[in-house]
Amino acid sequence: MEDVIYLDNAATTRVAEEVEKEVSRYFRERYGNPSSLYSLAEETKTEGLDYSRDVIADLLGVDSDEIIFTSGATESDNLAIKGVAFAGEGKSHFITTEIEHHAVLHSFEWLEKNGHEVTYLPVDENGLVNPDDLEDAIRDETKLVSIMYANNEIGTVEPIEELARVAKENGCLFHTDAVQAFGKFPLELEDVDLLSASGHKIYGPKGVGFLYRRKGVRMEPLIHGGGHEGGKRSGTENVPGIVGLAKAAEVNYGEMPDEANRQEELRDRIISRVLEIPETILNGDREDRLPNNANFSFRYVEGESIVMKLNNYGIATSTGSACSSPSLEPSHVLLAIGVPITLAHGSLRVTLGRDTTEEEVDYFLEKIPGVIQELRRASPFSE
Amino acid sequence: MEDVIYLDNAATTRVAEEVEKEVSRYFRERYGNPSSLYSLAEETKTEGLDYSRDVIADLLGVDSDEIIFTSGATESDNLAIKGVAFAGEGKSHFITTEIEHHAVLHSFEWLEKNGHEVTYLPVDENGLVNPDDLEDAIRDETKLVSIMYANNEIGTVEPIEELARVAKENGCLFHTDAVQAFGKFPLELEDVDLLSASGHKIYGPKGVGFLYRRKGVRMEPLIHGGGHEGGKRSGTENVPGIVGLAKAAEVNYGEMPDEANRQEELRDRIISRVLEIPETILNGDREDRLPNNANFSFRYVEGESIVMKLNNYGIATSTGSACSSPSLEPSHVLLAIGVPITLAHGSLRVTLGRDTTEEEVDYFLEKIPGVIQELRRASPFSE
Repeated sequence: MEDVIYLDNAATTRVAEEVEKEVSRYFRERYGNPSSLYSLAEETKTEGLDYSRDVIADLLGVDSDEIIFTSGATESDNLAIKGVAFAGEGKSHFITTEIEHHAVLHSFEWLEKNGHEVTYLPVDENGLVNPDDLEDAIRDETKLVSIMYANNEIGTVEPIEELARVAKENGCLFHTDAVQAFGKFPLELEDVDLLSASGHKIYGPKGVGFLYRRKGVRMEPLIHGGGHEGGKRSGTENVPGIVGLAKAAEVNYGEMPDEANRQEELRDRIISRVLEIPETILNGDREDRLPNNANFSFRYVEGESIVMKLNNYGIATSTGSACSSPSLEPSHVLLAIGVPITLAHGSLRVTLGRDTTEEEVDYFLEKIPGVIQELRRASPFSE
Repeated sequence: MEDVIYLDNAATTRVAEEVEKEVSRYFRERYGNPSSLYSLAEETKTEGLDYSRDVIADLLGVDSDEIIFTSGATESDNLAIKGVAFAGEGKSHFITTEIEHHAVLHSFEWLEKNGHEVTYLPVDENGLVNPDDLEDAIRDETKLVSIMYANNEIGTVEPIEELARVAKENGCLFHTDAVQAFGKFPLELEDVDLLSASGHKIYGPKGVGFLYRRKGVRMEPLIHGGGHEGGKRSGTENVPGIVGLAKAAEVNYGEMPDEANRQEELRDRIISRVLEIPETILNGDREDRLPNNANFSFRYVEGESIVMKLNNYGIATSTGSACSSPSLEPSHVLLAIGVPITLAHGSLRVTLGRDTTEEEVDYFLEKIPGVIQELRRASPFSE
């Protein structure tokens, strides 16, 4: 699959070469268990685990002991939400939004099943959460607010600084799922208490991520055992994965902001050219948008068919988010921003990465009008 | 650290060369998200994820959809125990043993904090659980019995077939933490409902493992989200790790039983020679014992000092389990088998692996008597 044009970097990314090298070294040379006492283990601990923790903490401007390594952002989200719920006495109230990732939504649904109350904030037609809505929803017993930094489907970047301030001023904890934002631009953590991120969205390994937890935030572990990660997440540390995550974070922050600017230009070229196709709309905010995300709805066609047609040209894209692709339900995010159900079925997400070239984008732009035209010609709904 | 003599294979193992190659391929070539729709993702799904699941299932003689991939055995243990507890109505009774891994013990302690009841079975002086004790402890409301296949510290292999049968005959589910047993010898799963295993103990990657869950066993997920792994464990699948785990399992089962016999011979040589050192005892059962485990207590000396002295000779060993090494508490396993607290502090665990050579064992045997003698000479307790 050397020649695939990979435009699905929001789903997952190709591991960077420098990341792969680091990981391999920890597979066969520095394989010691960091909890052991001998030199081999000491090396794994200090140069692998501790160093990686310092790298992530430095990039975020937080303390090293505020970083908890996990198996990925889904676990981080579950840990933040359920961990805070378990740490409290009795039942509490929580606030989130209608456009969160399923890792967040289904964690909250599980809390509801267990007697907690959850408010799901609506968003505007661009996917933006209104800080006034948040303020109105907060109650005396509200424990935690969880709002994603940037949406994985439509790319909208939320006003996290303001939303977190509202939460803080009203005495609530604030969590953000920053999976799509981390590594793309500097994050504003001033009033953020908990933040989830993932390795495989930033050219790092799958199966590793972290949760930033501000010192003092009361949180029960989700996974009990040997007391690793300051007692907050047990299990032998995945040192190769963690080292890879830290290296990937370094790569991303090192290429910032040039790489974001480069992708933004390509993205804007895609947006303006694709919108020339008739009866096409852009989903998500035009300005407050991830530098690498474009998401469209094409009237009269099915998203899956577009993805399959593009695949025939060797172009990898997605409809909805990767996680829910196999399901036939329309995207809950598109429905939340008011896209009619027929249009929600015809959505295409194009997400760029550091390996994406101008030539690849041009090739995609050359193919997409014909693909849509062909599908519409075959569609019973098209006029 | 090329020249380290690594005798701590129960803590973690060096990744096998063939495993590393497989994993790397999935980092840079087959990096697609298995939930996506295009060819790159399809390949990752069928040849990576599905194939690996089939491999593990075949080795265990179970169905592929009974294998749930996780981030490791600690998560698998938590998922089995809490997942079964959450799936029930109200509070239940559980049974485990005093010598379980902390992943199991602390999961149960957490259930106790949340209103469930747990019975901790004692073991005999060799670490063996008596099936009659289990039968006596089972009540009408007992939901799950969790007993490890083989102990990670003292190497004792439990009579799992019989214990699982007792559980089944009395209407309870049976879970076993098989971290140390999986890959060493064929497992008896006839009456086992849930089984945890790990990649990094069998020359596979850290951060990946699985839970076998017999079809029909009611279990809530621990980590909610996109509904991966049959809805039982969400989060983008760690395909490179999973592929590495399956390859490692193939390597281990392929070398069975020759490799176990080879290690057993080396282990027996260690046991007989080390027991020639005065005031030394073997911990764990002499017969029902992991092929690669030897665990001793040396009177008058501290286990940590032995490990550090051996480290000076380039030999990596452990005292207690790796997970609790940094703590100063004596091993709960040694206390459970009745080792006096002074002797429990002087324990040494030596665990062999497929890379362990006869020469390495001889080098260890050459050094250990002098190490013990030297430490005893310096000990205020020695006569």
